[in-house]
Amino acid sequence: MLGNSVFSCFVFYSTLLILKMYTLAVITGQVRLRKKAFANPEDAERHGGAHFCRTDSYVQRCQRAHLNDLENILPFLFLGAIYSMTGPSLVIAQGHFLVFFLGRVVHSVAYLFALKAPTRSLAYTVAQVPCVSMAIQILLTVGFNG
Amino acid sequence: MLGNSVFSCFVFYSTLLILKMYTLAVITGQVRLRKKAFANPEDAERHGGAHFCRTDSYVQRCQRAHLNDLENILPFLFLGAIYSMTGPSLVIAQGHFLVFFLGRVVHSVAYLFALKAPTRSLAYTVAQVPCVSMAIQILLTVGFNG
Amino acid sequence: MLGNSVFSCFVFYSTLLILKMYTLAVITGQVRLRKKAFANPEDAERHGGAHFCRTDSYVQRCQRAHLNDLENILPFLFLGAIYSMTGPSLVIAQGHFLVFFLGRVVHSVAYLFALKAPTRSLAYTVAQVPCVSMAIQILLTVGFNG
Repeated sequence: MLGNSVFSCFVFYSTLLILKMYTLAVITGQVRLRKKAFANPEDAERHGGAHFCRTDSYVQRCQRAHLNDLENILPFLFLGAIYSMTGPSLVIAQGHFLVFFLGRVVHSVAYLFALKAPTRSLAYTVAQVPCVSMAIQILLTVGFNG
Repeated sequence: MLGNSVFSCFVFYSTLLILKMYTLAVITGQVRLRKKAFANPEDAERHGGAHFCRTDSYVQRCQRAHLNDLENILPFLFLGAIYSMTGPSLVIAQGHFLVFFLGRVVHSVAYLFALKAPTRSLAYTVAQVPCVSMAIQILLTVGFNG
Repeated sequence: MLGNSVFSCFVFYSTLLILKMYTLAVITGQVRLRKKAFANPEDAERHGGAHFCRTDSYVQRCQRAHLNDLENILPFLFLGAIYSMTGPSLVIAQGHFLVFFLGRVVHSVAYLFALKAPTRSLAYTVAQVPCVSMAIQILLTVGFNG
């Protein structure tokens, strides 16, 4: 399957997006250390005392960015893989994957830097377009067997 | 693979469930706008002022429904795909997928409309049965190679 | 594909990890019942009254353990499947999967029993190593097509 151009293009962007998600987790951890705001007493104890088991607004922002990635990038991993099997044209498929990839990168940047609304919402919406498009094309392909 | 009846049946229900998850995200966003309860200051500023950066019990309900979907529908996307490769009978496989699909739809409806307990928990449990069944059948198929 | 040793080894550990995730959900539910701490008024009403709709620190701990699994195990389901297609040696692939599996099991145990820091963080980090390794090998394989 990796010899298929559409599928390998999908795999390329998907893997980059997973590395982007991992980066958000690392950033959250670094912000926790710098702001001394830990979710667990055992972590707070290790880094200065139980009173550092507390919330922080920027930690929560990182967590929201990460959760939004789970809600959107993980379903893309499924839709993109199945869509690749429906035999789309390479150029159109690349367009779907690239729009999603760029939309999600802008979404993370807009979240982490608290860019002026509606930058983040717009990036989210743009990234959803290829996902809904792939979902519809998948349903049209397999719908008659369901 | 999409020519395989079991797999295409799985893909059909999975794609519908992903669209259902996306719908939950849209509903959450609409409730935020209607109740003026935003998670981010930049969103609140755009929609009337910083004091609208606040929590709302129905927004949190939508978020719990969505998170529960992530916890259950996303693993199903994996289990269903692998289970389809174990060569199950079409009727039994369709039964697995349909029970999961209906269970998750009822779960979302029960969550959003706060239906009397234990409707939601029951829907969750019913949907888990085919998942655990598929997991066991997968382990029986590949267990000797692991 | 299930006849491929690398892939079936991956499927074996992945399925066990999904069952581990399901177990966390069951534990969370049991703790809610025992501590009488429900997220939804309708659940609280059924189990003694609306005042049991409240938070509990151990329920939140279970939820953090579960969310961390979503953030890490779900991307592994993708990376491991694709990595299996890149034709790795069986022994090296088994090493990747086993390290991830053990790391995530220790992570859950460390979370639920609040083991002394940095046990949990260490388990998380160890489990991420094979994931990043697989991501890099995938990118090297498909990078030139992307």
